[in-house]
Amino acid sequence: MTDQQLSSLIRQMTIEEKISQLLQLAGPFFEGSESQGEITGPMEAMGVSEELVRNTGSVLGLTGAKEVIQVQEAHLKKNRLGIPLLFMADIVHGYKTIFPIPLAIGCSWDMDIAERTSAIAAAEASAAGVHVTFAPMVDLVRDPRWGRVMESTGEDPFLNSEFARAFVRGSQGTNLTQDRSRVAACVKHFAAYGAAEGGRDYNTVDMSERQMREYYLPAYRAALDEGSEMVMTAFNTVDGIPATGNRRLMRDLLRDELGFDGVLISDWGAVKEMIPHGIAANEAEAAYKAIEAGVDIEMMTLCYEHHLKAWIENGKVNESLIDEAVLRILKLKHKLGLFDNPYRGANIELEEKLILSEAHRQIARDAAIKSSVLLKNDNVLPLQEEQKIALIGPFAQNGDILGPWSWMGSKDEAVQLYSGMVDLVGSAQIDTAQGCDIETMTEAQLAEALAVAEHADVIVLALGEHSEMSGEAGSRGDITLPQVQRELITALKSLNKPMVAVLFNGRPLDLHGVYDQVDALLEAWYPGTEGGAAIADLLYGKQSPTARLSMSFPYSVGQVPVYYNHFNTGRPQGAPDAQVRYVSQYLDMPNEPLYPFGYGLSYTTFEYNEATLSSTTMTEEQPLTIKVRVTNTGNRKGEELVQLYVRDLSGEVVRPVKELKAFRRIILEPGESQEVTFTLAEEQLRYHHSNLEFKSDSGDFFAFIGGNSRDVTELKFTLTK
Amino acid sequence: MTDQQLSSLIRQMTIEEKISQLLQLAGPFFEGSESQGEITGPMEAMGVSEELVRNTGSVLGLTGAKEVIQVQEAHLKKNRLGIPLLFMADIVHGYKTIFPIPLAIGCSWDMDIAERTSAIAAAEASAAGVHVTFAPMVDLVRDPRWGRVMESTGEDPFLNSEFARAFVRGSQGTNLTQDRSRVAACVKHFAAYGAAEGGRDYNTVDMSERQMREYYLPAYRAALDEGSEMVMTAFNTVDGIPATGNRRLMRDLLRDELGFDGVLISDWGAVKEMIPHGIAANEAEAAYKAIEAGVDIEMMTLCYEHHLKAWIENGKVNESLIDEAVLRILKLKHKLGLFDNPYRGANIELEEKLILSEAHRQIARDAAIKSSVLLKNDNVLPLQEEQKIALIGPFAQNGDILGPWSWMGSKDEAVQLYSGMVDLVGSAQIDTAQGCDIETMTEAQLAEALAVAEHADVIVLALGEHSEMSGEAGSRGDITLPQVQRELITALKSLNKPMVAVLFNGRPLDLHGVYDQVDALLEAWYPGTEGGAAIADLLYGKQSPTARLSMSFPYSVGQVPVYYNHFNTGRPQGAPDAQVRYVSQYLDMPNEPLYPFGYGLSYTTFEYNEATLSSTTMTEEQPLTIKVRVTNTGNRKGEELVQLYVRDLSGEVVRPVKELKAFRRIILEPGESQEVTFTLAEEQLRYHHSNLEFKSDSGDFFAFIGGNSRDVTELKFTLTK
Repeated sequence: MTDQQLSSLIRQMTIEEKISQLLQLAGPFFEGSESQGEITGPMEAMGVSEELVRNTGSVLGLTGAKEVIQVQEAHLKKNRLGIPLLFMADIVHGYKTIFPIPLAIGCSWDMDIAERTSAIAAAEASAAGVHVTFAPMVDLVRDPRWGRVMESTGEDPFLNSEFARAFVRGSQGTNLTQDRSRVAACVKHFAAYGAAEGGRDYNTVDMSERQMREYYLPAYRAALDEGSEMVMTAFNTVDGIPATGNRRLMRDLLRDELGFDGVLISDWGAVKEMIPHGIAANEAEAAYKAIEAGVDIEMMTLCYEHHLKAWIENGKVNESLIDEAVLRILKLKHKLGLFDNPYRGANIELEEKLILSEAHRQIARDAAIKSSVLLKNDNVLPLQEEQKIALIGPFAQNGDILGPWSWMGSKDEAVQLYSGMVDLVGSAQIDTAQGCDIETMTEAQLAEALAVAEHADVIVLALGEHSEMSGEAGSRGDITLPQVQRELITALKSLNKPMVAVLFNGRPLDLHGVYDQVDALLEAWYPGTEGGAAIADLLYGKQSPTARLSMSFPYSVGQVPVYYNHFNTGRPQGAPDAQVRYVSQYLDMPNEPLYPFGYGLSYTTFEYNEATLSSTTMTEEQPLTIKVRVTNTGNRKGEELVQLYVRDLSGEVVRPVKELKAFRRIILEPGESQEVTFTLAEEQLRYHHSNLEFKSDSGDFFAFIGGNSRDVTELKFTLTK
Repeated sequence: MTDQQLSSLIRQMTIEEKISQLLQLAGPFFEGSESQGEITGPMEAMGVSEELVRNTGSVLGLTGAKEVIQVQEAHLKKNRLGIPLLFMADIVHGYKTIFPIPLAIGCSWDMDIAERTSAIAAAEASAAGVHVTFAPMVDLVRDPRWGRVMESTGEDPFLNSEFARAFVRGSQGTNLTQDRSRVAACVKHFAAYGAAEGGRDYNTVDMSERQMREYYLPAYRAALDEGSEMVMTAFNTVDGIPATGNRRLMRDLLRDELGFDGVLISDWGAVKEMIPHGIAANEAEAAYKAIEAGVDIEMMTLCYEHHLKAWIENGKVNESLIDEAVLRILKLKHKLGLFDNPYRGANIELEEKLILSEAHRQIARDAAIKSSVLLKNDNVLPLQEEQKIALIGPFAQNGDILGPWSWMGSKDEAVQLYSGMVDLVGSAQIDTAQGCDIETMTEAQLAEALAVAEHADVIVLALGEHSEMSGEAGSRGDITLPQVQRELITALKSLNKPMVAVLFNGRPLDLHGVYDQVDALLEAWYPGTEGGAAIADLLYGKQSPTARLSMSFPYSVGQVPVYYNHFNTGRPQGAPDAQVRYVSQYLDMPNEPLYPFGYGLSYTTFEYNEATLSSTTMTEEQPLTIKVRVTNTGNRKGEELVQLYVRDLSGEVVRPVKELKAFRRIILEPGESQEVTFTLAEEQLRYHHSNLEFKSDSGDFFAFIGGNSRDVTELKFTLTK
């Protein structure tokens, strides 16, 4: 349909039909939904009528080809103008084949794996009838207390932006209309949701506009540049106004400045939440503020439904605002081909064939291998097949390794660590015991663990957080591993055997009581459906660890926020002329995190030599070439992630001590060396000045090159203009 | 001298003399200083010449009538135009008679005691030759990790503003020229220094401008309204630019908008610190940015001295900027009467008479009584004189109770807790043991403590932080009481005797391991010179506790920032329709602090009844009258602090769940009741809108009345306009 045809369709719609097109309801409200029997309650409680359901524009969380087809079929029969429903769902890190959580994917630094996993998630979801995924979540985060840290790729605006693009590409492909294995992306949560105060979910966000533009906006912008069809509003306030009712944020910045012309949807209930936020006295005011801000779809509350008509009738809201919103929604339906085929990708046979297919599982395993970060290894990994292993801990035989945003995934389908290891080396080599539950331990559990460990050559501990300890509304004030698990480590430590800990969790943890007791430490995150197989591959050296932290692991929660791209302050610790006391420091802990951004070990070692700049002067016309020779100095083939950072030594505003600008992956045989070359250009040195202008300054800079953000070689150059 | 005469004086000054007038050096640089012998080092290191010292405008940290007179005398002989030196010093909570730390004074909620203590500090300091005190520090703070929290009055903009005024009144009096018992105030640190990220001193500050204006600026503004002669720049950045080089902050906001025409001084070294901050490539740029921002005096670095002349000569800096700065400094010298009597208050006999006089000590004792907060009391306090007391802990006999900003105070002059108690009830009643040091414990110490406690009726524990654990650069990531002290409590707990803990410390602590083990808990802060006497008065009921927390005590550092005047969020915990999981909360700890703002017990109890509003409608012309009946329901005479809070239920931007608007102190005999009346007017409901306009909105409000910020009676009213 042309825009004209869509406009003509809109002209045929009654005001009620138009307003209902802006509503999104959950699956149980719809006839044909298999969970229909359960909905009398919510329908009545919300005041949803049958007529309203008939005119509703979109549905969330209803999936499965059979059911989607049924619901769409029933809907089209009832909807006066035959406008199909849009089916949206949270397909965050996989549909049924579950991939590692986004924070883990972030640690892969691998855009190919990000794109492939989101493409598979899209393919499975599309076959199951989904049209739009509420992903990617690209919120920059510096606070590991926040539960949704698991859903972000980390603390760096550049890396997050690369991932934002990759996820959108994976979801949408290059032709959403033709390619029915893809779904539309909905980037979220606009804006700055990751900065919730105190790391408490849904909490206040406050920052300067420059801070927001410099660090928080780039990843959303990258997703929009990549063509994300939709945007979701954040739950939080932005400069005192909830994002969902924030006209300056949505109309002025998102629409006008960033040029976003797609569908803007509220997060679940966020329109009505303007009332508890305290900027709307009632639902009518909430509706007014949301439509004025430019929110097209109201998710799961009825403020638009109950009040927009009156606002139009009293002349306070121009009907053209509603028409524009409806047009954006219909355009998306058109783009997805729903007017031609309202069932789109929904396909019962294909769904059956794709879901958890061997090919998909293989990618899941590969993604988990690429996402697990080796944090410590004192000559105990990789394990030898002939070693007798005691696999102990609450995650030894536990399918809760899919992570919090895997509602369609089945824990029963997850490969547990014990199974993964047995598959590789046989059950005779592996004894196992639970040792403790996630947060409790019995004497019998401990005794069994000690007995099992007694006969082992190496103890492998499978520890972590259960998946509800992170994710939405999963904030923790204490970010240590639960105490009983640390006690289990201490008890086993008394056996004086080599100990390896594998961690399954959703946030950077304070690893005191863990890293200091074990000989090797592998951060597996929630690795997804093939988790146990992937971790076994890594433990036994079938594969080598390659992942690097995309978020700092704090020394302590008392140090939060701790992130690599901080400012220097006027009294930096460790400066040559620094006093002992009067510097910016804690008296009782370091300023530095326990493990820095970019950090991760491999099964071999690398040396950096001969770092050089093509010139000590850069101009706007003449970028620099930066070279370094990297040598594999260990005994195994290995992959190194060479990272390039810069620092602007004197800006118009203060600039971070390091900023990631590029990275390169190389694979080297033992003894092999390779020269790695980066190009650094003036536009990579631009930043937001105090007047928000985005430009570079002439002056001195450092370029840093190394295998993580801490251990680098420094080179100085000057930008002249 | 008239302005004209001062201008004429400036015209006689060479450019070098003018620039040096902008310099402030520490005492050891000056001839006549008794510490002169030690200065060869720093003079040489800084590149300070004799000529420079001769032309310098002001000196810091040199006190004592004899020495000040010597230095001024020597200076006037050498200074070509006979311009006297200004003597400035950090007189923060007392000169030699040390009062409780400002955070403790904040807990008094008593403007009279604030004014009296700062007047005494001024009188002692003035007699010792000081002209300007670097106080009050009025930085709002929400993070107890920050060491300088001890120097603030707390987390509330209204209460901080009241204290800012009181401190300035106390320092300056009403006629600084005539009243030589006063000194000029220098409000600090402009602006928002209390918001250092991670509570790490000198660290980055970032917030929206609205946040800064609404919460952080009011106390500085109050100090300026009260006539503070000087302002000190903050070490931190404000929107990316260090305050000391921040033209928008200093010229546009402080000078033009707030109308400040006094002397603006950098904090120690802060001009040169623009280099490590990274907004100045070298000292020349730092000098340029500071003078352009309007900084009159450069403290302890020589950027102006070495570079301003060149900036004037190359035409980049207008000499009029220097003339203006010099004029402001000379005007202050004139206002202080230094051109008439360059020695001003310096008076050897008076100094001797005032310092630690009985009258001053009495006020110090009174201030400490009014500042100590009773946090818990399960029928153990007040102590009975006939009880046998075991006084145990590192603060039992310890003079380190003056606090971090008491450099002129003598710990030997401090009344220790043991002495204070013995003075009241005699040594036969009090056995004492150290138990442990602040951060270490020996078995012998513990054994002695247990032996001493064995024979007691009541154990009084004297615990806390040594004074270097807070104060400038005294940030802690862990805010619990040091572990050995918690172990001491646990060990003594086994004796099953009533236990009272008295805490000497500089920040709100996480009191787990303390409050849950003892029967009574008194937060004494650093109570100053008469600390032990005052605490003894309270413990034995010679005086009743009246203080209330002016800063929340967190449940855990993992909850920081936690403050009473937070926003509600869109998903508040505990709302009637709240879900179990999807609300703003921590999974593992409450949202609420352990002890809230405004909280504090007395030795009696109070009941609130009959809370009423004069009307449910307020207009701009018609304020409300709010009444409540307060009854002393206990058996002792007592003082209650009745607090009035409001909440704007629907603003243009989100508004705090509670905001302190007024408080009233009443004294009631047992059984007595009194009606307390507040007036609440439209102007008290104004706030900064999204466009920064300061006004109120019509709509619904709550008024809350109660004895702390948590336990209140709610009344609803509507503002109509």
